Amino acid sequence: MNTVSTSWLDEVRWNDQGLVTAVAQDWQTGRVLMVAWMNREALALTVQEQRGIYWSRSRNRLWRKGEESGHVQLLKELRLDCDGDVVILMIDQIGGMACHTGRESCFYRRFEQGEWKIVDPVQKDPNEIYTS
Amino acid sequence: MNTVSTSWLDEVRWNDQGLVTAVAQDWQTGRVLMVAWMNREALALTVQEQRGIYWSRSRNRLWRKGEESGHVQLLKELRLDCDGDVVILMIDQIGGMACHTGRESCFYRRFEQGEWKIVDPVQKDPNEIYTS
Repeated sequence: MNTVSTSWLDEVRWNDQGLVTAVAQDWQTGRVLMVAWMNREALALTVQEQRGIYWSRSRNRLWRKGEESGHVQLLKELRLDCDGDVVILMIDQIGGMACHTGRESCFYRRFEQGEWKIVDPVQKDPNEIYTS
Repeated sequence: MNTVSTSWLDEVRWNDQGLVTAVAQDWQTGRVLMVAWMNREALALTVQEQRGIYWSRSRNRLWRKGEESGHVQLLKELRLDCDGDVVILMIDQIGGMACHTGRESCFYRRFEQGEWKIVDPVQKDPNEIYTS
């Protein structure tokens, strides 16, 4: 085992579930598209394959973003925060949609006058995205 | 108790520790400045006082960002993601620094050739920020 090549993974402060928070941000516009989780393997694979690969807590397995939708996230830049428990992925979002609702970003609800208002349009019907 | 005014807080999917992930983003440049946590009270106060207020897990208390440094975060916009477990604060970062290291952003380390490289400058010596 090459210890040199994995020491950067040891610098990440994994939580008690072995996960780190991962923010995916459009590398050109800066818009935050989604926030998910990664385990050690997901982060290593993200770098190896140069695409966003997460750990799905609901499905309890690796989740290669775009594996069903084709909406792959090409990695442009990777950053770690000061206390090592959050990474940012600057990505090129293939298809222009990161959200399973068919929107560009998962953050399509804005707080307005005491309510969460949907302010972003659906770009594509999810039924057309996830055909199986 | 006014149930109307707090129903938006019930739409947030608090984790088993009663917390939600909070991303603070510069409202003008889109740069992600920091990622922290909020409990219900912190999020309610953030809206009420229109500034970033978090829950410090290390200090186990409310943390009014800027309470020591003066680097207050003025709230410009608040968003919630599709599954309700992450909020984004679009903020005006007073002092231009969100990180306790005296940098603009906590994400000052970039992955380069197998290492986390510090790529952003310190704008102000932390000893000058936290005097007391």
